[in-house]
Amino acid sequence: MSNAVHASQSSPDAHPFDRALVLEGTGAERCASVSADYQNMVGPFGGVTAALIVKAVMSHEAREGEPVALTVNYLGPIADTPLTIVPCLVRTNRSNQHWTITVSQDDVVQCTATLVLAERKPTEESVELAMPQAPAPSRVSSLVSDAFPAWVRQYDMRFVHGGLFPAVAVGDTPSESLVWMADKPTRALDVFSLTALCDAFFPRLFIKNQTLTPAGTVSLTIYFHCDGQTLGAIPSPYVLGKAKAGKYFGHYFDQHAQIWSECGTLLATTTQAVYYK
Amino acid sequence: MSNAVHASQSSPDAHPFDRALVLEGTGAERCASVSADYQNMVGPFGGVTAALIVKAVMSHEAREGEPVALTVNYLGPIADTPLTIVPCLVRTNRSNQHWTITVSQDDVVQCTATLVLAERKPTEESVELAMPQAPAPSRVSSLVSDAFPAWVRQYDMRFVHGGLFPAVAVGDTPSESLVWMADKPTRALDVFSLTALCDAFFPRLFIKNQTLTPAGTVSLTIYFHCDGQTLGAIPSPYVLGKAKAGKYFGHYFDQHAQIWSECGTLLATTTQAVYYK
Repeated sequence: MSNAVHASQSSPDAHPFDRALVLEGTGAERCASVSADYQNMVGPFGGVTAALIVKAVMSHEAREGEPVALTVNYLGPIADTPLTIVPCLVRTNRSNQHWTITVSQDDVVQCTATLVLAERKPTEESVELAMPQAPAPSRVSSLVSDAFPAWVRQYDMRFVHGGLFPAVAVGDTPSESLVWMADKPTRALDVFSLTALCDAFFPRLFIKNQTLTPAGTVSLTIYFHCDGQTLGAIPSPYVLGKAKAGKYFGHYFDQHAQIWSECGTLLATTTQAVYYK
Repeated sequence: MSNAVHASQSSPDAHPFDRALVLEGTGAERCASVSADYQNMVGPFGGVTAALIVKAVMSHEAREGEPVALTVNYLGPIADTPLTIVPCLVRTNRSNQHWTITVSQDDVVQCTATLVLAERKPTEESVELAMPQAPAPSRVSSLVSDAFPAWVRQYDMRFVHGGLFPAVAVGDTPSESLVWMADKPTRALDVFSLTALCDAFFPRLFIKNQTLTPAGTVSLTIYFHCDGQTLGAIPSPYVLGKAKAGKYFGHYFDQHAQIWSECGTLLATTTQAVYYK
């Protein structure tokens, strides 16, 4: 990373998301601060932590290829102290790489993660999922986020259905949300912001019960269906997200979601296991 | 593990699945053989490898709780040489545990994995997914598996739609399968067989194109929606699996699947990222 880029990212004029993603140090061990802009009720928004993990790999000198599959496990609440991110290249194959990553604070592991990268060369391609029908973002009201934790205020969220306070309309199932989302202020999409957006759905239990109760992601998985070239060519900063739960059992539920560009490209599918009280 | 149980599992009279899951050694480093019964086209069926990973953790003396979320990354083809499985307990919280696991052959890492365990205490529970409608297993023909790799012959697969050779009926999307599956001979469900069943769907590309082409799972994630008590009370060995693809892009596609007990309990949701040529 050039000093120029680094300085720009550290600058107070940079986008809050880029300021939250500043990594110090070299490839083998990186350092980051926990951003006050993306604080959640307990610790930071997990989407930014996941984006930091992806960035630590993507900026590593041994990196080859682009993200295919990411899994991040959240072991406990992250404090305000510096984060140490250690990316480890486990295997380079002919066309892909396997990485494991740990995030620690004061020598305590807070996240474990795995990331598969690959060269996304052209081949037979098709999409079987259908983009959900939704009015254009300009025709949907933005969530008034003043009363929400800091991270929510970094996004423009426009709920078609399955919103929070007010509930807006109800989707096919009690927990289903359909929502336009964009960084606020707007920022061109890249693999880091896409990673964070995959975790920007409120816990499904909040939507189903229309109340906030203790809940937190324990494991997040993202499958990327685009590359940097795809993302760089997308004019709109808005993505359409659809999320729903599967089952709530024994203090954990699953969430299944899709992220579409405004022009109809499926960018990612993502799942998570979430603790609830 | 008592010697008695161990001896029974090693016995030639034991179920092929139990013979494939025999682990030697102690908690910190376990050894397993690659089962000829579960060979795939290149290397063993990934479902058995995943089940071995779960078993290495579940039989570890420090284990507390039951599986919630498993991710296994497959780094390359597994040879016929012995497997070394190293489970590492990263964190024990008040109600859950985070493990990382590696599977190696001759000091080369072949799989990395993470497993979250938790005490599945009673709490508010509900299911939002609906069980797909299907005729009873007894009314659906079994796949004739003689021409398939060995692992397929260890399962009774009864395709309602989205089968292979013949295609049977087509589901809602070209790649969708609805299939009853059971161990052959039948075996009571447990967390190990459930883990393997989550990987027992043919690659979606085979279903869509009705032809076999090079393809292999690079990352498998399973969310468990049951505990050992749930599984132990299920009378039927058959589970109903529904699987479909999301998008095929740049040599990787995603698969999303559900596993239901015959009596209508959602046992697991599972996703995977799959390489295709």
